Amino acid sequence: MIDKSKYKILFGIDSPKDVKNLPVGDLKILCSEIREYMVDVISQIGGHFGGGLGTVELTVALNHVFDPPHDKIVWDTGHQAYPHKIISGRRDQLWTIRKFDGISGFLKISESEYDAFGAGHASTSISAAVGMAAASRIQNIDRKVIAVIGDGAMTGGMAYEAMNNSGILKSNLIVVLNDNQMSIAPNVWQISNYFTEMISHPEYNRFKGAIWDLTGKLDQFGDRLRKVAARLQTGIKSVLTPGMLFEAFGFRYFGPVNGHNVGQLVKLFDHVKDLNGPILVHAITEKGKGYKPAEGHEQKLHASTPFDKITGKALKKTGPPSYTSIFGNALVEIIKKDNNVIGMTAAMPDGTGLDKLQAECPENYYDVGIAEEHAVTCAAGMATQGIVPVVAIYSTFLQRGFDQIIHDVALQKLHVVFVLDRAGLVGADGPTHHGSFDLSYLRMIPQIVVMAPKDESELRNMLYTAVYYKGGPIAIRYPRGSALGVELKEEFESIPIGKSETLKSGSDVAILAVGSMVDYSLQASAKLEEEDIHAEIVNMRFVKPLDEELLSDIAHRFDKIVTVEENSIVGGFGSGVLEYFAQKHFTKKVLNIGLPDKFVDHGTQTELHKLLGIDPEGISEKVKQFLKDDVGKEVLA
Amino acid sequence: MIDKSKYKILFGIDSPKDVKNLPVGDLKILCSEIREYMVDVISQIGGHFGGGLGTVELTVALNHVFDPPHDKIVWDTGHQAYPHKIISGRRDQLWTIRKFDGISGFLKISESEYDAFGAGHASTSISAAVGMAAASRIQNIDRKVIAVIGDGAMTGGMAYEAMNNSGILKSNLIVVLNDNQMSIAPNVWQISNYFTEMISHPEYNRFKGAIWDLTGKLDQFGDRLRKVAARLQTGIKSVLTPGMLFEAFGFRYFGPVNGHNVGQLVKLFDHVKDLNGPILVHAITEKGKGYKPAEGHEQKLHASTPFDKITGKALKKTGPPSYTSIFGNALVEIIKKDNNVIGMTAAMPDGTGLDKLQAECPENYYDVGIAEEHAVTCAAGMATQGIVPVVAIYSTFLQRGFDQIIHDVALQKLHVVFVLDRAGLVGADGPTHHGSFDLSYLRMIPQIVVMAPKDESELRNMLYTAVYYKGGPIAIRYPRGSALGVELKEEFESIPIGKSETLKSGSDVAILAVGSMVDYSLQASAKLEEEDIHAEIVNMRFVKPLDEELLSDIAHRFDKIVTVEENSIVGGFGSGVLEYFAQKHFTKKVLNIGLPDKFVDHGTQTELHKLLGIDPEGISEKVKQFLKDDVGKEVLA
Repeated sequence: MIDKSKYKILFGIDSPKDVKNLPVGDLKILCSEIREYMVDVISQIGGHFGGGLGTVELTVALNHVFDPPHDKIVWDTGHQAYPHKIISGRRDQLWTIRKFDGISGFLKISESEYDAFGAGHASTSISAAVGMAAASRIQNIDRKVIAVIGDGAMTGGMAYEAMNNSGILKSNLIVVLNDNQMSIAPNVWQISNYFTEMISHPEYNRFKGAIWDLTGKLDQFGDRLRKVAARLQTGIKSVLTPGMLFEAFGFRYFGPVNGHNVGQLVKLFDHVKDLNGPILVHAITEKGKGYKPAEGHEQKLHASTPFDKITGKALKKTGPPSYTSIFGNALVEIIKKDNNVIGMTAAMPDGTGLDKLQAECPENYYDVGIAEEHAVTCAAGMATQGIVPVVAIYSTFLQRGFDQIIHDVALQKLHVVFVLDRAGLVGADGPTHHGSFDLSYLRMIPQIVVMAPKDESELRNMLYTAVYYKGGPIAIRYPRGSALGVELKEEFESIPIGKSETLKSGSDVAILAVGSMVDYSLQASAKLEEEDIHAEIVNMRFVKPLDEELLSDIAHRFDKIVTVEENSIVGGFGSGVLEYFAQKHFTKKVLNIGLPDKFVDHGTQTELHKLLGIDPEGISEKVKQFLKDDVGKEVLA
Repeated sequence: MIDKSKYKILFGIDSPKDVKNLPVGDLKILCSEIREYMVDVISQIGGHFGGGLGTVELTVALNHVFDPPHDKIVWDTGHQAYPHKIISGRRDQLWTIRKFDGISGFLKISESEYDAFGAGHASTSISAAVGMAAASRIQNIDRKVIAVIGDGAMTGGMAYEAMNNSGILKSNLIVVLNDNQMSIAPNVWQISNYFTEMISHPEYNRFKGAIWDLTGKLDQFGDRLRKVAARLQTGIKSVLTPGMLFEAFGFRYFGPVNGHNVGQLVKLFDHVKDLNGPILVHAITEKGKGYKPAEGHEQKLHASTPFDKITGKALKKTGPPSYTSIFGNALVEIIKKDNNVIGMTAAMPDGTGLDKLQAECPENYYDVGIAEEHAVTCAAGMATQGIVPVVAIYSTFLQRGFDQIIHDVALQKLHVVFVLDRAGLVGADGPTHHGSFDLSYLRMIPQIVVMAPKDESELRNMLYTAVYYKGGPIAIRYPRGSALGVELKEEFESIPIGKSETLKSGSDVAILAVGSMVDYSLQASAKLEEEDIHAEIVNMRFVKPLDEELLSDIAHRFDKIVTVEENSIVGGFGSGVLEYFAQKHFTKKVLNIGLPDKFVDHGTQTELHKLLGIDPEGISEKVKQFLKDDVGKEVLA
């Protein structure tokens, strides 16, 4: 696997205490060993990569200066935290990262006392740190609280809300802005453009020098002063420092500092650690630092499948295309014929498949940053003017726009198309990223249509249907990963709203399935046929509105009905069927199969489906058990 | 009602076109008439008040300079928009504002072509305007888009996300910052403190003057220059203008301008209207301007019941105390004995009842601003350290923290107490503010407890139970308005988690009720008794976990079961009962009574309950109808 002999220090680092006790001179060596180790391991197993390579020195310096777990270091998002995991007792477990029963790819309180706060979604760290600092004040505990947040996460409104509140509270807290100047995708943080412009502007540097020179040398520099003043009038902007923005929030600003100079970082953290009030340390880093194929590669090494260590090229993937790419291609096809349609992402062009749109129709492509709240309401604004926005946000991240979907879109019955990738279990990213709730949180919203395709061909048609639907908000959800490999038709077809499709007729039980579970249910029914159980299989297509005609027909023909969905069974599709049956006074035995009412850990999708009994085998077993129960006899609680 | 003869202009203003056509000299008169008219009307009928008094001149100036509805004026939140309603054809309907079948208290697209975007929740206007500006660009339409946003709404993360995105897009849009320097409650916007400090700082004004003087007079002012430079070194802060912050977002800044000088506003808007790119106009206004009792009164005249026009005193209200005040008092009682507990509000100290905590235990009181996302995660941060945060946010506004409840609180099983006031129909505020969804959106979250008290005494005990519950997140929801007037016990009592309470035994039907619907169900059962129908009434108390023992017992004893809740029937408490029955293979006829799957308009709570058949009369009628259906016979769809 790896050659330990090439590491001098790393294998003696079993906790942050060991980093604290290292001589400053050894920190640089440790950094390069961490980097080497990450490349060694992650190239073989895959994982979020670029972020961690950028935070090696920050991690080492913070742990050298501060005293966790007494001091709290809150890592935002968690992609950044691989070096943190390596030095906090999980070096040897890095091999298991993101694997079933292995360590999480993100921060997780239950995994280590050094994971001060769990983090999968972005922009939460400052809020959590403000809360911790407030707690320390109430409890009268002398503790440093540090939040490390990337510039990408700074586009999230929460980060701003937290900075603002921190200034009001005068929290004792240090925010380390890990500014790699490209976020997940580049060019979404305006402030960053502003910084870059200022920092790179020769005026800024000359002026900064001039200001410093002035101290005590007023008379001597009469001429220079005049030049300074002249510059002032040509543009006040040029006298700004990046810090002024943060000073407006009540922060003391330090930086920008080279985030890859561990000695300089140690000095700076040593200097600020005993200051009171909110502090901002602005560190400039490079995502992928120290690994040539990753540097300058922007998005590609944000998350990675296993790759060739030397070239950085991903190892070949085979099989059918992903739902993501099917969606991305279909949207481009539609937009090329209809300029009235746009695609919107919240800083996830690659993840959502909108990178193709960005490349081919940049005028119809909107990346709003990690800003799901804004995305939804901005789309609503567009929709008032007759533009059709297709808002592509992962199921789990759209939770951030829940209020906006209700208040700004559905209430006004605006035609916004929501495309939820990663609906259902996402696999290696685990509980922070599973799309377990969207059918429940969307279904409760009045005036919305909610669809899930059974395969990639239906996805294309649903997208087309959604774009040309005139009745208000409409959502499509589909899973992460490969589609089924079915043949695609060039022409789009419209699907009647609320109309299901019966795929197989049967007599013993009806299985009503949604999205990813349709194919699984068909496979399950094949197993059931082997045991002479004849299941009718329906591709429901619509979770809202439900196909009431079909449901009524099913209720008349079957005594036992099964619903299957890759969504929480609480409030999901199955509940909708129960509500309809109750409303119509049908008293049927219904088995709701779906995700359990608990958080599901990480693992591959296949492993998790099996674990939860929602793979074809599990579904067929559950149906068999359900049919064994005597019809008409109530089972006691 | 009012004396029209005292108005010279107002009754000739039937649309914004009339404002546009007025000579500039008359605008001031119109402003004073609008103000007079608002005081006249609102003092008699109640309504949001202070906000509108502050925007009279802005409204008049914007409509004089711009050209709605072609140009889009997007008002944030809507409290500000009474003057807008008065001049856009709804002057005479102001008498009906917030009344059943009357005009809405907020913006509403369906009400007027001049309401460019609906708004009840704060901080949405810039997002919507960015979307509209993008649409105009795609459609190649020359249109001005203006968002008017208060400083309070500027604490919301969405506003920041939108500003950031606007800077990136270089949107053609004008943001008018209506800065009354106190938001809904004062002192939650750090930037505002910063502005105030700067604007009031003599250095700032002197420096600003100096900069202007410099133009073309360099040699003449050699001495002055030296002083300027000296000032620079003593603190860069003092040379900042408020605009620099917005310039960082890519906005051109104009102001601060006196927001009550209509002539000056007209000049400024005329100047900026043909500029390209994002523009920010910073107008300083006074909430309650021109009405003495409201000026300087901070929160009190944000929303108002009818009041005496001369003194500004609210007309006396009689009856039992509100749930809000019961909660506020109980929390203070708990915190006075336990310093480990804190109360948190998102800019609603009065509305949530936390004003009492603020006054009596300021150290344990947190107002984070209109920042629900941050509130939830900040509370999670506190909870990691053993502090018990009681987060009091209206049901409708907590939708903004949905993702954070899942990702930062529930997933980490942190002990945060959520207190949801305004759960159910809120009355006059209407669909943007109804708390119709919380039982659905909370119930789907794993590891959370969800409670609803039947009366104020139970609310006290639930709060106590929640604060000392050790198992993770726990929520209490209760309605707006008066409690029942039951006697309160001084001592708190703990309620066993998941345990219901049977209030009346019966034999014909079981009614399982939640929260506000418990008392209504008791009243309904009294009506049913008159017709010899004996209903068993259960106060469920817990929507999650459900009292499964009780449900099983009920299922064994009754064939027909009714659930009643003041929450959407989609995914709510009733669905939970259906899910449980399905899981246990109970085939019962269940009638789910609750809010329908549609948006409900405004009106008094009593009117709306009646309209929807969820008042005692309606419930008893529905139960009677339900019992009439033949048991065992399925009703066809």
